[in-house]
Amino acid sequence: MELFRQFDPTDLIKRELAEDVGHGDITTAATVAPGAMGRARITVKEARMIVAGGILIEPVMRLAGAEPRMLALAPEGAELRARDVLAEIEGKLAGLLIGERTALNFVQLLSGVATTTRAFVDAIAGTRAKIIDTRKTHPGLRVVEKYAVRVGGGHNHRLGLDSGVLIKDNHIAAAGTVTKAIEGARRVAPHTLKIEIECETLAQVEEALKARADAILLDNMTLDNVRQARVMAGPDVLLEVSGGVTVGTVRAIAEAGADLISVGALTHSARFVDVSMRIDAI
Amino acid sequence: MELFRQFDPTDLIKRELAEDVGHGDITTAATVAPGAMGRARITVKEARMIVAGGILIEPVMRLAGAEPRMLALAPEGAELRARDVLAEIEGKLAGLLIGERTALNFVQLLSGVATTTRAFVDAIAGTRAKIIDTRKTHPGLRVVEKYAVRVGGGHNHRLGLDSGVLIKDNHIAAAGTVTKAIEGARRVAPHTLKIEIECETLAQVEEALKARADAILLDNMTLDNVRQARVMAGPDVLLEVSGGVTVGTVRAIAEAGADLISVGALTHSARFVDVSMRIDAI
Amino acid sequence: MELFRQFDPTDLIKRELAEDVGHGDITTAATVAPGAMGRARITVKEARMIVAGGILIEPVMRLAGAEPRMLALAPEGAELRARDVLAEIEGKLAGLLIGERTALNFVQLLSGVATTTRAFVDAIAGTRAKIIDTRKTHPGLRVVEKYAVRVGGGHNHRLGLDSGVLIKDNHIAAAGTVTKAIEGARRVAPHTLKIEIECETLAQVEEALKARADAILLDNMTLDNVRQARVMAGPDVLLEVSGGVTVGTVRAIAEAGADLISVGALTHSARFVDVSMRIDAI
Amino acid sequence: MELFRQFDPTDLIKRELAEDVGHGDITTAATVAPGAMGRARITVKEARMIVAGGILIEPVMRLAGAEPRMLALAPEGAELRARDVLAEIEGKLAGLLIGERTALNFVQLLSGVATTTRAFVDAIAGTRAKIIDTRKTHPGLRVVEKYAVRVGGGHNHRLGLDSGVLIKDNHIAAAGTVTKAIEGARRVAPHTLKIEIECETLAQVEEALKARADAILLDNMTLDNVRQARVMAGPDVLLEVSGGVTVGTVRAIAEAGADLISVGALTHSARFVDVSMRIDAI
Amino acid sequence: MELFRQFDPTDLIKRELAEDVGHGDITTAATVAPGAMGRARITVKEARMIVAGGILIEPVMRLAGAEPRMLALAPEGAELRARDVLAEIEGKLAGLLIGERTALNFVQLLSGVATTTRAFVDAIAGTRAKIIDTRKTHPGLRVVEKYAVRVGGGHNHRLGLDSGVLIKDNHIAAAGTVTKAIEGARRVAPHTLKIEIECETLAQVEEALKARADAILLDNMTLDNVRQARVMAGPDVLLEVSGGVTVGTVRAIAEAGADLISVGALTHSARFVDVSMRIDAI
Amino acid sequence: MELFRQFDPTDLIKRELAEDVGHGDITTAATVAPGAMGRARITVKEARMIVAGGILIEPVMRLAGAEPRMLALAPEGAELRARDVLAEIEGKLAGLLIGERTALNFVQLLSGVATTTRAFVDAIAGTRAKIIDTRKTHPGLRVVEKYAVRVGGGHNHRLGLDSGVLIKDNHIAAAGTVTKAIEGARRVAPHTLKIEIECETLAQVEEALKARADAILLDNMTLDNVRQARVMAGPDVLLEVSGGVTVGTVRAIAEAGADLISVGALTHSARFVDVSMRIDAI
Repeated sequence: MELFRQFDPTDLIKRELAEDVGHGDITTAATVAPGAMGRARITVKEARMIVAGGILIEPVMRLAGAEPRMLALAPEGAELRARDVLAEIEGKLAGLLIGERTALNFVQLLSGVATTTRAFVDAIAGTRAKIIDTRKTHPGLRVVEKYAVRVGGGHNHRLGLDSGVLIKDNHIAAAGTVTKAIEGARRVAPHTLKIEIECETLAQVEEALKARADAILLDNMTLDNVRQARVMAGPDVLLEVSGGVTVGTVRAIAEAGADLISVGALTHSARFVDVSMRIDAI
Repeated sequence: MELFRQFDPTDLIKRELAEDVGHGDITTAATVAPGAMGRARITVKEARMIVAGGILIEPVMRLAGAEPRMLALAPEGAELRARDVLAEIEGKLAGLLIGERTALNFVQLLSGVATTTRAFVDAIAGTRAKIIDTRKTHPGLRVVEKYAVRVGGGHNHRLGLDSGVLIKDNHIAAAGTVTKAIEGARRVAPHTLKIEIECETLAQVEEALKARADAILLDNMTLDNVRQARVMAGPDVLLEVSGGVTVGTVRAIAEAGADLISVGALTHSARFVDVSMRIDAI
Repeated sequence: MELFRQFDPTDLIKRELAEDVGHGDITTAATVAPGAMGRARITVKEARMIVAGGILIEPVMRLAGAEPRMLALAPEGAELRARDVLAEIEGKLAGLLIGERTALNFVQLLSGVATTTRAFVDAIAGTRAKIIDTRKTHPGLRVVEKYAVRVGGGHNHRLGLDSGVLIKDNHIAAAGTVTKAIEGARRVAPHTLKIEIECETLAQVEEALKARADAILLDNMTLDNVRQARVMAGPDVLLEVSGGVTVGTVRAIAEAGADLISVGALTHSARFVDVSMRIDAI
Repeated sequence: MELFRQFDPTDLIKRELAEDVGHGDITTAATVAPGAMGRARITVKEARMIVAGGILIEPVMRLAGAEPRMLALAPEGAELRARDVLAEIEGKLAGLLIGERTALNFVQLLSGVATTTRAFVDAIAGTRAKIIDTRKTHPGLRVVEKYAVRVGGGHNHRLGLDSGVLIKDNHIAAAGTVTKAIEGARRVAPHTLKIEIECETLAQVEEALKARADAILLDNMTLDNVRQARVMAGPDVLLEVSGGVTVGTVRAIAEAGADLISVGALTHSARFVDVSMRIDAI
Repeated sequence: MELFRQFDPTDLIKRELAEDVGHGDITTAATVAPGAMGRARITVKEARMIVAGGILIEPVMRLAGAEPRMLALAPEGAELRARDVLAEIEGKLAGLLIGERTALNFVQLLSGVATTTRAFVDAIAGTRAKIIDTRKTHPGLRVVEKYAVRVGGGHNHRLGLDSGVLIKDNHIAAAGTVTKAIEGARRVAPHTLKIEIECETLAQVEEALKARADAILLDNMTLDNVRQARVMAGPDVLLEVSGGVTVGTVRAIAEAGADLISVGALTHSARFVDVSMRIDAI
Repeated sequence: MELFRQFDPTDLIKRELAEDVGHGDITTAATVAPGAMGRARITVKEARMIVAGGILIEPVMRLAGAEPRMLALAPEGAELRARDVLAEIEGKLAGLLIGERTALNFVQLLSGVATTTRAFVDAIAGTRAKIIDTRKTHPGLRVVEKYAVRVGGGHNHRLGLDSGVLIKDNHIAAAGTVTKAIEGARRVAPHTLKIEIECETLAQVEEALKARADAILLDNMTLDNVRQARVMAGPDVLLEVSGGVTVGTVRAIAEAGADLISVGALTHSARFVDVSMRIDAI
């Protein structure tokens, strides 16, 4: 979570406000008196949700001109129930109305990611596996969606193509063999990066281990094969499993010996959580 | 669809490539020979999907350095089945690998929106209603997500706060009454904009009609009330209905007399469609 | 006026300061002691002018490093006479000198637009018509020039091509007929937009009314034709008149029945008002 | 003129198109068939005008998606009469309509500046004086407005605060004396810059000459004083005259001995020239 | 080298041209006829140098308006001697003059880095050690300076703070102990990153090995201690050595058992190589 | 020095932090507790150095999230010795660690430039010559490197191609003769710029003087020729000397009569000064 606090969301928020507000919020200009003050309350309409992105509400409202004062804010990662108050903000009524949709779009999206992640994390409680995300994020939103995964209790796979080596089937084909691909990566990659390789068969796993891969990705393998790969790999080589993982199947995968289970759905299929914002003049 | 062609996606794509590639794709640099050429094929893994965003594949691959040549590309709006080929591209192998995830993230997201939209559109076939979207889009992606709604057969609500007047409960409260809010909007808004107002009761509908609103949004009303509002409004005032609309309930709403049915889920809860990209050296 | 307050002028001002200051104000660096403080006074040299853009003085001076304190500032829309003080600012002398030209360029331009607008608005006082602007603004300055029109008592036409439908002769020709063009627009445009169409003959007006246009633009029509169009249109369809409108001719147009009179000269031919800034060390 | 050709106007044009087009030209999307081609002709409606900015038409139309082919284009600096064709362009009809206003805004503004400039230049023909511009340009448009001044036969004063030293009364006051200000500038400024100083009295002129100023700006001086300053300065020190210069008064100033006559009105009060664009489908 | 080819230098070059050219190259505008063509030749004035950055000459000249054609270009990494031709370009004379300094600044800087790197690489030839760079690069130029290191035969340390874990003394102090710091990193960092830790004593090395660090940085240790650390670490844990490394001392460090020797001077103290560009009209 | 204070370094610093930090400082996130505070001390490791860029430490640390408080800071231009404290900062420990390298890269680079400059300036003490820089700066860093030259006691040559006229051999060749080149420049350049021309022979110097050049650049001339040029030029025309100037040779050049001695090495070959930053938790 600390990683995110290093990230200055100002430009991201400005871009989104520009997208939504454009030349100005005409409706608000037409109906709200210049000096009017208001209080906005965001309330949960889901049976259960994990909060993420609440820390963006204040800067969104500030950049929207609300001069906001946060009266209440659920902490990141908190579990809320229906009718709980996620946040309460006092400020200029016009600014609250202008920033409403932008603030909600962030909170609903990121809480959706965190809530989905938490379901997977809970499902493997007690095993040694970790739930990790993928690069299947919404364009432009990777840094915040990966943050929401961490808030939900998950971990991050590499952040982009420059912060990890992951050799896939296409790379193996291009390099010639598993061994050549791993050796090429060891020669070229900064020494700070581990070398992970995707294997489709146990024979490939064997070759990868011989070539001293640091991690192996087993994509769409049977549980039996995962178990066997675990035995072959020993405790020091990391095993990542991926492919059609659901909340229903994830525990069995963890128990088969996966160190890491990567789930694209954490980010690419999380829906907005349902919340409502009510704004009153004061 | 033409509206989208006016939009130059170059900057959006550059931003996403920068996000994903960062300082460089180390794995590809390590495994692919400089001059190697490749062929990439995107294949459908859904039972049924509507294509949107395919037209972004060529510019993504070009900006990723693939010098691509499109061998095949399903037209925007086409309905595809499992194992259909969505696109086939020939180009530099390294560039194809670098652009793979960015291209897929766009195609999977936008086709997801179009596919979801089509389901709603099909459900009201034969009625006079239109399916429209909302401003509940992913931050930074409004223009492309609204495009995907059109590809799926839906229509767009206002694009942002500056291209429409929509008076909600908070605005009415701020202005004092329905009538005052509408009069304020007529005074301030450019004459090119219609004035739409959200009503929670039939009494409000009556007041709005008297104040000569151009359109009325009925949020979470019963079907009976929608029917009554239809009668009150006559044929010239537009009726928009919203609130928890599903594919199962949408037809009844249309038949109750809605001109427009707005569905946030078109954009905020559409999941990535499932496709795979296979890349071969040639 | 509120609409403008939603607009954050920081980036616009930064761009203009970058354009004017470049690598630095060498003259000021050579002549002003680092800690020196100063007081700047902007005085009117016109017989009569309407103030617009005064609210930009403080941010310009702040971004120029003046750490300004506003001692006096005429309110937006105020009518000033020769020798009146428009603004008085205390701050770092160097910053005041660096920001001088940028501040004045904004104030002189925008007050010029507001002053010109006011002359047209005054000329039609008591009629039901409104003076509106066009898209003939200086590149990059639309949002502030349209704001100045409002300050001067005018109203805004659409802000850009995406916040209004205005079918011109070229569009009619492309669509085939007036009727087809209107029907196309009704099919494609968001329902939040009215449909306005430019008519060159009363026959076209008749066709447009039949096709239920929301507004009609009469370009370069005789007063007689405007009067007839008024009768044909009835009270509910908006009539906009344009073409060579001057302060001398505008009242007759209003009295002929125009709802809206659009005047390109508000923005494309308004000259800078004459003011002077005197800066003293203190 | 060559100076301008070094300037890549792409970003300026993109910014203006973004400002005008926003999310898209809805009217054109509604009325123009995707493949339709058109021909646009820009015709002069002024009795006489000087062309500037015509070279921006092709890039504007290209960036608007018209894939334009220029059939005719009056050269920069050409003098045109009523009904002359300024430009003729063939291309995609939709793109021509989208780019129309942006192209015209540039051409009308810049030709306005060039036409105004030419009037001043013609008025001093045969004298040794030059007409120069000021920094009173429209925010964001300095580089193109200064270009238009050159096209009209004028010359440029410094481009910004970093490409010249011009000591004004406020700087003198800050430095203490004329002599101290000039010495400070000589110490601080790059040696590539001349040192110009504004003088309000002949006594100041004398002091400036003693301190070896390279150029002297006489603001609002009588013609007699200009003549005397000319004698005092000798042939090597440049004399610039400014203040309320009109086409009617400029020649007398030149004949009084000015080397340079600076005219803010070249840029701050030039109105758009009147032209029309007619677009036909082909 | 391939990694760099993924990088599009257009924006970097545009920024530098903007910085150098500003409003325009006045000297060239004053002296070069519009259509004049020229030929530029870059010649080596060093006794010996390694070329890097030559591939930027063509895009610099293109963006400077030269419409260049490369007649000759030494390949990246080539070793040149005094009077060798590094590049020869034909194009518009004005563009060649405008782009001259920008092109040279890149080539001289990057070749300086590559030449310095090569000296270190040559000095350890035959050992198993690699020369690596640091984050001590010139602000804004990391990606190109790290590229030049690779061209010179060196390797890259992590590219930034997000593509590697390197625990330094300050981090150890913050975490409490070496062990706690390593465990924290293993918990938080993406599994694709190795964990490297800086050790100041052999006791720390021992603790780090027990905590299963992947790599150890020995800063300013004696050669004896490096040798002992090598024995302690065994063959699988990477040893990086840094601190005051010179061409004279680097071989002894390599022979003491370092896997990686990091040298800040590769980038922070490499001087521009000496070359000259002669441009002739043709 | 004042010139620099006009420059807002925020964007430059943000760019560098983005380059270094990327998605986040993983090591710091893993080892530093959220609320931990720290104190950082920058200590000199050179025998002698001139400080420049210290004023960037506070904004770097602020933008890195340290909420810094400066406890000590050596003034710009101060001469420090080994073990002197350059700066001491208290703030959030995580922010101090994140900003460390960026702050140091600026301080080490700029102090390196200032220190090198001071050596040249000291070497000509008592002569009338000035040490000036060139355009051989690191891409993107011109404004700060030229600032550091001033801090070191040097002066600036033109800032870019738009703030000075410097006719070189290639321009002379393009214009035809020295005289034609000077006349062209006088016709085209803003009158605020002096005209300087590079001469390779005394014959050229003579021609340049006849054509009334304001300054003459003697490149790689013998001291005898410099002396003769001085006599020919008289006291009013500036003489700049360049070409292979070292601390050892610069005084003789000054004594031969140079007004200005330009030294590329001030910026293109200054190495980072050696300092260390020690950060302690508090």
